Amino acid sequence: MATALAQTRPLDLLADFPAIPTGWAYLDTAATAQKPRAVIDAITRAYDTTYATVHRGVYQRSADMTLAYEAARKRVARFIGAASADEIVFVRGATEGINLVAQCLGAINRDSPYFLGAGDRILLSQLEHHSNIVPWQLLRDRTGVAIDVVPLTADGRIDLDAAEAMLTPAHKLVAFAHVSNVLGSVLDAKRAAAMAHRVGAKLLLDGCQAVPRLPVDVTEIGCDFYVFSAHKLYGPTGFGVLWAKGEILDAMPPWQGGGAMIDRVTFARTTYAPPPARFEAGTPHIVGALGLHAAIDYVEAIGLDAIHAHEAALVRMTRERLGAINSVRLFGPDDSAGIVSFAVEGVHPHDVGTILDEERVAIRAGHHCAQPLMDALGVPATARASFGVYNSAADVDALARGIERVTRIFG
Amino acid sequence: MATALAQTRPLDLLADFPAIPTGWAYLDTAATAQKPRAVIDAITRAYDTTYATVHRGVYQRSADMTLAYEAARKRVARFIGAASADEIVFVRGATEGINLVAQCLGAINRDSPYFLGAGDRILLSQLEHHSNIVPWQLLRDRTGVAIDVVPLTADGRIDLDAAEAMLTPAHKLVAFAHVSNVLGSVLDAKRAAAMAHRVGAKLLLDGCQAVPRLPVDVTEIGCDFYVFSAHKLYGPTGFGVLWAKGEILDAMPPWQGGGAMIDRVTFARTTYAPPPARFEAGTPHIVGALGLHAAIDYVEAIGLDAIHAHEAALVRMTRERLGAINSVRLFGPDDSAGIVSFAVEGVHPHDVGTILDEERVAIRAGHHCAQPLMDALGVPATARASFGVYNSAADVDALARGIERVTRIFG
Repeated sequence: MATALAQTRPLDLLADFPAIPTGWAYLDTAATAQKPRAVIDAITRAYDTTYATVHRGVYQRSADMTLAYEAARKRVARFIGAASADEIVFVRGATEGINLVAQCLGAINRDSPYFLGAGDRILLSQLEHHSNIVPWQLLRDRTGVAIDVVPLTADGRIDLDAAEAMLTPAHKLVAFAHVSNVLGSVLDAKRAAAMAHRVGAKLLLDGCQAVPRLPVDVTEIGCDFYVFSAHKLYGPTGFGVLWAKGEILDAMPPWQGGGAMIDRVTFARTTYAPPPARFEAGTPHIVGALGLHAAIDYVEAIGLDAIHAHEAALVRMTRERLGAINSVRLFGPDDSAGIVSFAVEGVHPHDVGTILDEERVAIRAGHHCAQPLMDALGVPATARASFGVYNSAADVDALARGIERVTRIFG
Repeated sequence: MATALAQTRPLDLLADFPAIPTGWAYLDTAATAQKPRAVIDAITRAYDTTYATVHRGVYQRSADMTLAYEAARKRVARFIGAASADEIVFVRGATEGINLVAQCLGAINRDSPYFLGAGDRILLSQLEHHSNIVPWQLLRDRTGVAIDVVPLTADGRIDLDAAEAMLTPAHKLVAFAHVSNVLGSVLDAKRAAAMAHRVGAKLLLDGCQAVPRLPVDVTEIGCDFYVFSAHKLYGPTGFGVLWAKGEILDAMPPWQGGGAMIDRVTFARTTYAPPPARFEAGTPHIVGALGLHAAIDYVEAIGLDAIHAHEAALVRMTRERLGAINSVRLFGPDDSAGIVSFAVEGVHPHDVGTILDEERVAIRAGHHCAQPLMDALGVPATARASFGVYNSAADVDALARGIERVTRIFG
């Protein structure tokens, strides 16, 4: 059963991850990734050796920290193929990035081609995470913008043929998951960008599950907005990235007010800094930026192609092993990127998760913040195993043995 | 000159702070505090030993992390005297907390007593940080709410007599700094709450500079909203707290959409979780919460009264030493909480800061995100020394010697 993995030279990186004890199969990386020592060390060093504020200090320590903070921005730009570091807005996470876009496009000057309001339509898909649904609903509640929903193919991909047929000139924005957090299905992002642009719409991609699993180049894709969270990319919590094309950021009004995002403040009238500062009010999550920098260095040293191949092999093994168990139903496509959702007939996913926990296998059970997808699949919840660079065939074995125990207990 | 400090038994905690090398006078704590080893260790341990996501995992590690995360919320509630942990909303920092309040009160049901819109007035003061000005200006731009500005007393306090005379039944909200980030002046918060309530207004306090420097009890003060940032309280970056009275949070509509803040999502209609979850969309800054917990344990073990006395003594010493230098102008009141702003006649504050840096003294020079206060003081910028638990009379000596060198160079 280990052949699929053997063919691609498996990664052997478990020793880099101090929080994964021997014999624990951590299969919840789609929720949050464990951290390599290099990232933890970068965070610790930022606090215990080089700590200072950024952008404001006249002393050397602060100037140095500012350089490190802005170096992280440049590193992110290079990582995702952005044209300029000024297009990188640091946010709390992907959720905040999408909310920022939704609120700013709703508040932009009405003459702007980017304005979203009554009469305009937004195209989402049935598999989106709540973070790519609810911000648009809040905008709908406020402005009257309409939301359309692309159905899925039988194997759980966003149906781009259906999307193409649904798109009209009234659509101003298309917002899709680059990789589904439940099914692992990978979007044909270039095709999505081309079809959005054909009707004059912009494309936002939720890249949370993509950046840790695939090489991503926003320029090559041709999308307009891209968001991701650091903690899912082996980086720190409370940090993430919004990338948008420079001319769109330039047009967007301020979002939150405060320090660092202003040009000149008087009580009568305040003027604002250019992007990205305009969208970064307040002292930033300085150490978050440094930790993300280290995380990007870490995954790029491995190579995103190698990570993708590694996880694809683990997915194939998992689908083979679990597919051979009669009572297991597998969701999503065979070429899923690192994520396998499944159900065990007659057993609630939470019970699956609890029994697996006793076997030292950590999976996620629930709606995965994707209730509309659960509705489409006709289940209240799924069990989900998701992989990272630290996983191996042994983890798949442990999962399969655990599921066999589940079927014996409930059989 | 060390008498003032000697009288109050100075703290001797420098050894707890690994990022402060011997002989470096770090006097920029009002910008951000250095971190004690206990906080750094809590952060490192969260990543290298106990790391998992919260609220969603069916496995033990995640359940344990959820307990730790929610324990931090309870710890914060106890720290500031909140009636319930459900009144504690975790945010990125004080800036986000104020933006959240401004945007939510502007979007609340118009029948609500908390609604802010055209015809309503907000009372701010001349010494507010931009983070307590610009969010209200953005609300004004959107809704037509009016902003009034309380002047300062001659020694740099918010003039509460003037505020009392300005308040009318049209005022729905008063938003003041509990401690000025430039002058260190301490608000009579109980009086401010009483006078706001007399006209039916709510009181929001920006507690960024207060919680590291004074005992704070929101119930005793009687305010309605309180915000602060973790990184100024010896805690991690990218984390902070919004406290509001339960009945106000209950009435507030969702702010950002995403995971964790929902009850049930369908494309037709989404319902929301009760506070505080309603305001915490997305995976939170888990490690930020754990770090803040450790920071609160740290400062409470010292005692906020002891910290206040320590910093008050350092302020008195500083004002004595610098006041004895002819060309130095001191701003703010003598009983400032841990912060001294000053100018050296004929020398730009940036030059003061640069020369002090050569002397291994780190201060802040600039407008301190308080341009309207600079306008009121009639200066473009000030130099600011601000203290923390790690500072000592030696740091004041180093500052005074550095200023003497400044005066020699520019004399």
